[in-house]
Amino acid sequence: MKKIAVLLSGSGVYDGSEIHESVLALLEITRAGASYQCFAPNIPQFHVVNHLTGEVQESETRNVLVESARIARGDIKAVDELEIAEFDALVIPGGFGAAKNLCDFAIAGAEHVVEPSVKQFILQFSTARKPVGFICISPVMIPQLYPLGISGTIGSDAGTAAAFELQGGQHKAALVDEIVVDEEHKVVSTPAYMLAGDILEAHSGISKLVAKVLEMA
Amino acid sequence: MKKIAVLLSGSGVYDGSEIHESVLALLEITRAGASYQCFAPNIPQFHVVNHLTGEVQESETRNVLVESARIARGDIKAVDELEIAEFDALVIPGGFGAAKNLCDFAIAGAEHVVEPSVKQFILQFSTARKPVGFICISPVMIPQLYPLGISGTIGSDAGTAAAFELQGGQHKAALVDEIVVDEEHKVVSTPAYMLAGDILEAHSGISKLVAKVLEMA
Repeated sequence: MKKIAVLLSGSGVYDGSEIHESVLALLEITRAGASYQCFAPNIPQFHVVNHLTGEVQESETRNVLVESARIARGDIKAVDELEIAEFDALVIPGGFGAAKNLCDFAIAGAEHVVEPSVKQFILQFSTARKPVGFICISPVMIPQLYPLGISGTIGSDAGTAAAFELQGGQHKAALVDEIVVDEEHKVVSTPAYMLAGDILEAHSGISKLVAKVLEMA
Repeated sequence: MKKIAVLLSGSGVYDGSEIHESVLALLEITRAGASYQCFAPNIPQFHVVNHLTGEVQESETRNVLVESARIARGDIKAVDELEIAEFDALVIPGGFGAAKNLCDFAIAGAEHVVEPSVKQFILQFSTARKPVGFICISPVMIPQLYPLGISGTIGSDAGTAAAFELQGGQHKAALVDEIVVDEEHKVVSTPAYMLAGDILEAHSGISKLVAKVLEMA
């Protein structure tokens, strides 16, 4: 049975992992006959957003690993606990947590940097030539983790695509039900809620991404 | 297009709505060509549980509506905003939030009481003879909301089944991929994570529940 790592960044679209994308990835991994283990960095969230009002809850702090455990039903490990030999591939859901906690794209734009423990985690997969699937906004991290010219998609947002290219990647526009595959480096990406109007549209691309990642694993 | 209300109780299995069950319900509603609107009571959570350690975070308070908004991607209403004429049916995911925030079964057992604003919300559906689907532990509320002898399932847990019967319901044991239907009162229930060993098993019963609720709507 193939075993897939899933990297979370909190729990909630505005300050953590996009919950629908995360659960749909877990569903498709399991449906394909593979198993999963969730991971997250053991760091404070960039901030906490009230998802009802959209306002930042200034007085509150939450931990990325602890909040990600909500999606994982408690079964989650810190990124530095990875035993790379146990895993065949990695999938990274989106949500603002990917752009605020896994890297700082939401704050720094094209100058953003991948969080060190997260970078070390993902590089173990790329170094071992194990496939990685990036969903929604998480593909902004791809150019920092792979050689110049690596291809990927964040859908069709011009500013985000420009940042992807400024960091050395080759951005390919994609529709919500499409995936972009870099066969050489085993990298798959899909826009999901960068473009999705509903959960069914998000599901269409995520299903294809998980299937392709498992095929290459 | 049929429109389905989804009643949430927070965001996370140990103190709120079970996240997988909630997202799977939203997926199946949308896949069937219906739309959904999430609701939650605007009340404090019974408590906050660290989902990594299982410990209660004594110093912290969270609001059920605000946390439920994470699953709803911000698009959620308080239960007292319900316009019953707009809706064809209701679905209630499980998780400890259903037994700690929607009612107090997790604390009071067979003596538990449904939270007043939640009771008022659900009764608008039963009074209008609109179908309601109860998932996982949320069926413990059924006997308080329907006439004596109403049937439902929480799976096979003896203590929970006994509480269901003490409150006047007729409990029917069910497997994880089964639903129990009370045709007369248009009530559907399924065990989901009361029994599910993985997300695929939870999905099997929830798919059938949503399909039956929509059929009766």
